Amino acid sequence: MTTARRPTKRPFPLSKVYGLLEPGPVTLVTTVRDGRPNIMTMSWHTMIDFEPPIVACVISDRNYSFKSLMTTKECVLNIPTAKLAKQVVACGNSSGRRTDKFRAFHLTPLPASRVAPPLIAECYANLECRVIDASLTGRYCLFILQVLKAWRTPSMAQPKTLHHLGRGRFMIAGRTIRLPSKMK
Amino acid sequence: MTTARRPTKRPFPLSKVYGLLEPGPVTLVTTVRDGRPNIMTMSWHTMIDFEPPIVACVISDRNYSFKSLMTTKECVLNIPTAKLAKQVVACGNSSGRRTDKFRAFHLTPLPASRVAPPLIAECYANLECRVIDASLTGRYCLFILQVLKAWRTPSMAQPKTLHHLGRGRFMIAGRTIRLPSKMK
Repeated sequence: MTTARRPTKRPFPLSKVYGLLEPGPVTLVTTVRDGRPNIMTMSWHTMIDFEPPIVACVISDRNYSFKSLMTTKECVLNIPTAKLAKQVVACGNSSGRRTDKFRAFHLTPLPASRVAPPLIAECYANLECRVIDASLTGRYCLFILQVLKAWRTPSMAQPKTLHHLGRGRFMIAGRTIRLPSKMK
Repeated sequence: MTTARRPTKRPFPLSKVYGLLEPGPVTLVTTVRDGRPNIMTMSWHTMIDFEPPIVACVISDRNYSFKSLMTTKECVLNIPTAKLAKQVVACGNSSGRRTDKFRAFHLTPLPASRVAPPLIAECYANLECRVIDASLTGRYCLFILQVLKAWRTPSMAQPKTLHHLGRGRFMIAGRTIRLPSKMK
């Protein structure tokens, strides 16, 4: 593992987390089950509140991660960049039932500070989350998460995030524009 | 109004709607109140199910559109491209309480087929929606919508969607890559 592949993580203000998730990047969700960490690919999420940052996400009950999250109530939303596109697809095409995805796809777990599931070192941002409301998991597989701690990799200042368009097609984040706005 | 600004709309398969919303584009939500259409800017949405397409979205109860949607249970999610960036910000910075946004920001309403709120002609995709579950509006301002009918503008094949990063900064959709995948 070289330094380039495992850059320094810095705490990121919770008040700015919404700007990471609003644009709709694909995420890699880490959970732990029976002491073993797992990863799944997940694009179905939305912000619900700014601060503390509250997020809703959908994780199907057919996914191995569903039960892990229901049991432990903890996960990390890791945000990959386009460099990790192959791993993103590989994580989406395999199951934690049979595969140690960290090992199989050469991803590096780092200890989180507030939850048991690990951060993925190679992702440019990492959001440590706790399930605060599971009442909608039965009807919609919808989990309500609170972000407890956020991390960013300062060296990845202009992250080329991946945005799933369906069936393995991804839009890669393009240029950024700024307009005068009162919107938060 | 030139033809270029008001291109033909074609029905779009409901089974493919998830690919429009998964990548996280900012949307312009149209509603109707007392016979008058209104527009708001909204980025907090996620897919919940594929087909019929079910979407969750957050519309704050401080927004004028909240009560309209609670009352009529109908809206259209219109997806703008980067050409409409100024209108997107203008709609986000004004309120339907005081402003006729269609008129003020030179947007063109088109009749929808299944709901009362209009489509926005200049947007590349339009999703006619009905609220099917309002039980979460009290706690999270979260609406569960079913997409009843979808439209696309065929001439906008490679839409440069806008993805809000906070405070008027937007990422513009970049290039698309495709990887072999079993993921839907």
